[in-house]
Amino acid sequence: MANPTLLILPGDGIGPEVMDQVKRVIDWFGDKRGLAFDVEEDLVGGAAYDAHGTPLHDDTMKKALKADAVLLGAVGGPKYDNLDFSVKPERGLLRLRKEMDLYSNLRPAQCFDALADFSSLKKDVVAGLDIMIVRELTSGVYFGEPRGIFEEGNERVGINTQRYTEGEIDRVARSAFELARRRNNKVCSMEKANVMESGILWREVVQKVHDEDYPDVELSHMYADNGAMQLVRAPKQFDVILTDNLFGDILSDCAAMLTGSLGMLPSASLGAPNADGRPKALYEPVHGSAPDIAGQGKANPIACVLSFAMALRYSFDQGDEATRLEQAIEKVLADGARTADLMGPEGGTPISTVEMGDAILSAL
Amino acid sequence: MANPTLLILPGDGIGPEVMDQVKRVIDWFGDKRGLAFDVEEDLVGGAAYDAHGTPLHDDTMKKALKADAVLLGAVGGPKYDNLDFSVKPERGLLRLRKEMDLYSNLRPAQCFDALADFSSLKKDVVAGLDIMIVRELTSGVYFGEPRGIFEEGNERVGINTQRYTEGEIDRVARSAFELARRRNNKVCSMEKANVMESGILWREVVQKVHDEDYPDVELSHMYADNGAMQLVRAPKQFDVILTDNLFGDILSDCAAMLTGSLGMLPSASLGAPNADGRPKALYEPVHGSAPDIAGQGKANPIACVLSFAMALRYSFDQGDEATRLEQAIEKVLADGARTADLMGPEGGTPISTVEMGDAILSAL
Ligand SMILES: CC(C)[C@H](C(=O)O)[C@@H](O)C(=O)O
Ligand SMILES: CC(C)[C@H](C(=O)O)[C@@H](O)C(=O)O
Repeated sequence: MANPTLLILPGDGIGPEVMDQVKRVIDWFGDKRGLAFDVEEDLVGGAAYDAHGTPLHDDTMKKALKADAVLLGAVGGPKYDNLDFSVKPERGLLRLRKEMDLYSNLRPAQCFDALADFSSLKKDVVAGLDIMIVRELTSGVYFGEPRGIFEEGNERVGINTQRYTEGEIDRVARSAFELARRRNNKVCSMEKANVMESGILWREVVQKVHDEDYPDVELSHMYADNGAMQLVRAPKQFDVILTDNLFGDILSDCAAMLTGSLGMLPSASLGAPNADGRPKALYEPVHGSAPDIAGQGKANPIACVLSFAMALRYSFDQGDEATRLEQAIEKVLADGARTADLMGPEGGTPISTVEMGDAILSAL
Repeated sequence: MANPTLLILPGDGIGPEVMDQVKRVIDWFGDKRGLAFDVEEDLVGGAAYDAHGTPLHDDTMKKALKADAVLLGAVGGPKYDNLDFSVKPERGLLRLRKEMDLYSNLRPAQCFDALADFSSLKKDVVAGLDIMIVRELTSGVYFGEPRGIFEEGNERVGINTQRYTEGEIDRVARSAFELARRRNNKVCSMEKANVMESGILWREVVQKVHDEDYPDVELSHMYADNGAMQLVRAPKQFDVILTDNLFGDILSDCAAMLTGSLGMLPSASLGAPNADGRPKALYEPVHGSAPDIAGQGKANPIACVLSFAMALRYSFDQGDEATRLEQAIEKVLADGARTADLMGPEGGTPISTVEMGDAILSAL
């Protein structure tokens, strides 16, 4: 049988540096665990723009659609800030999400024991935190039409459209309920049904999917503003949070920051399963391209490595191997290995990106 | 000269209880400081729906438009959850905002020294926190058309429209810059210009207003998701945050929760100044109607009292009297008076809503 294929898109900023460590980890699983992948690499974001004048070349798009999983580093940087909207690095990522139809974005916000002191929140509020945000990723105001800046009378008006069909809500709701069953069986769905009709439809469809097919999962609904408050006040009340594209963007970043260590958080973006049960999938760290430290060898590769662990679990049905990798990382942290972003109140000498890669490999 | 007029709309849940204490404070300023107001009272939200079948009667709307300032308690409650969207309690509030054209919503997130332990954040992260969110309140996705739930093929689609004109952005930006000049002279504007064209226009207009008329104010721009993170990570980096209606809803609640004491936070919603320089204005606490404790005499009236202090400052040019009231409240807190919501880790016996009113009056 042919090896499964991985498309690697390191992207911009610290993307390439952290991805280098992931490649070592991938090789390790091929050598030591008999999990060989056919790996291809390509450009995305500013790197693609520099080479081709577009943040995602059509050929790359085709490769992504064919690959069994895509691993992405990060996109964007100040160099590209003044580019036209249509060719900004972000458009490359958004095109991947849309054309791969990756409607379910899984963003764990997990607080690592060894790092509980890093949070700006009190330790007892976040220690042991383990929530999963399921964010709809292919629709809503990110993609709705009409959109643009138009002339109206003698001034301009900026317009975007929030738009959700029943089918779009239904499918992402299912993915949240499925996930909850494998976790603590609780879903809290967030919208602004008190203000937006799209939120009313969202609430109604989520409730219907629940009542018809997931009555065993505990479901609650919360307005998104209250959701932001509750995340800050008492995040451990949540298990799975289900929300739309824009609310998910903000709430998942808020949740991520609760853990205090953004350099630790992976994400998975999943589409519909294909014939062999494997979903279209893209994995990427939650952190961005961090242009301020790019090229200095200080970036923390863990979020990107953990994104590969998510790939093992969600794309390749290798939950045990994913756990092996996650445990290696916990060990590394427990042993005190710290990149610069993980320098806590206690101080210490940071290790480099490569040294963190070394540590992970030796823990494996 | 006639007394200035106040329209009081206690609303639902704990609204009436907390407003009762505000009325005592208003009387005190009339008796002791020669600041007499002509006070009228009316219904809003569920209370108005129960009486008239609408969450805001046209007569009330007229009174609000005529009043020099409106004080509102809170709207909403589970009793009204199943009402049609068009008559939900929230619609009453939204109609007031829209028809009074209250485009600039000021939401201070301030951490009171005596209460710094209440925050779920570490004390050093929030002690002394004093930021002001300026939220656009009359446009954006809250009011944009088209909106609704429509049939499309064989399914339904929920649609809302995010919409900002240059003029709408310009005027709220000005109010943020004006405020910043009276504070620490810094504005951070938040949107999603990397994803939404309305955000691009927002950023451009804010920058233009700055460059033309407020070059002395320090201006920065931030994506709203990063804004949520930064609020959690290091909120004291901000002075004034300027943002749109929907982002403002979420970010201001997030900011409010950083302080740990929602029962303490007031807000002001201001429109254009009229001939005598007084803006159309509505003042309300940030907390909601808290149906779970309504009618039990336990609610904290401070946020509502502080909303009246904002009225003194922003509507009646009585900054000194506002400060007098704010200082009385700080004294009450320093003396240890605590309603149930302010029972911290150290415990103690909570006082009632009325007792807190008593304490404020005697501190005055
Ligand atoms: C880079 C940007 C387009 C993106 C988004 O807004 O979705 C990012 O913030 C994210 O959350 O993945
Ligand atoms: C009650 C509701 C309509 C309102 C809003 O969404 O604006 C509230 O959350 C607020 O922030 O004042």
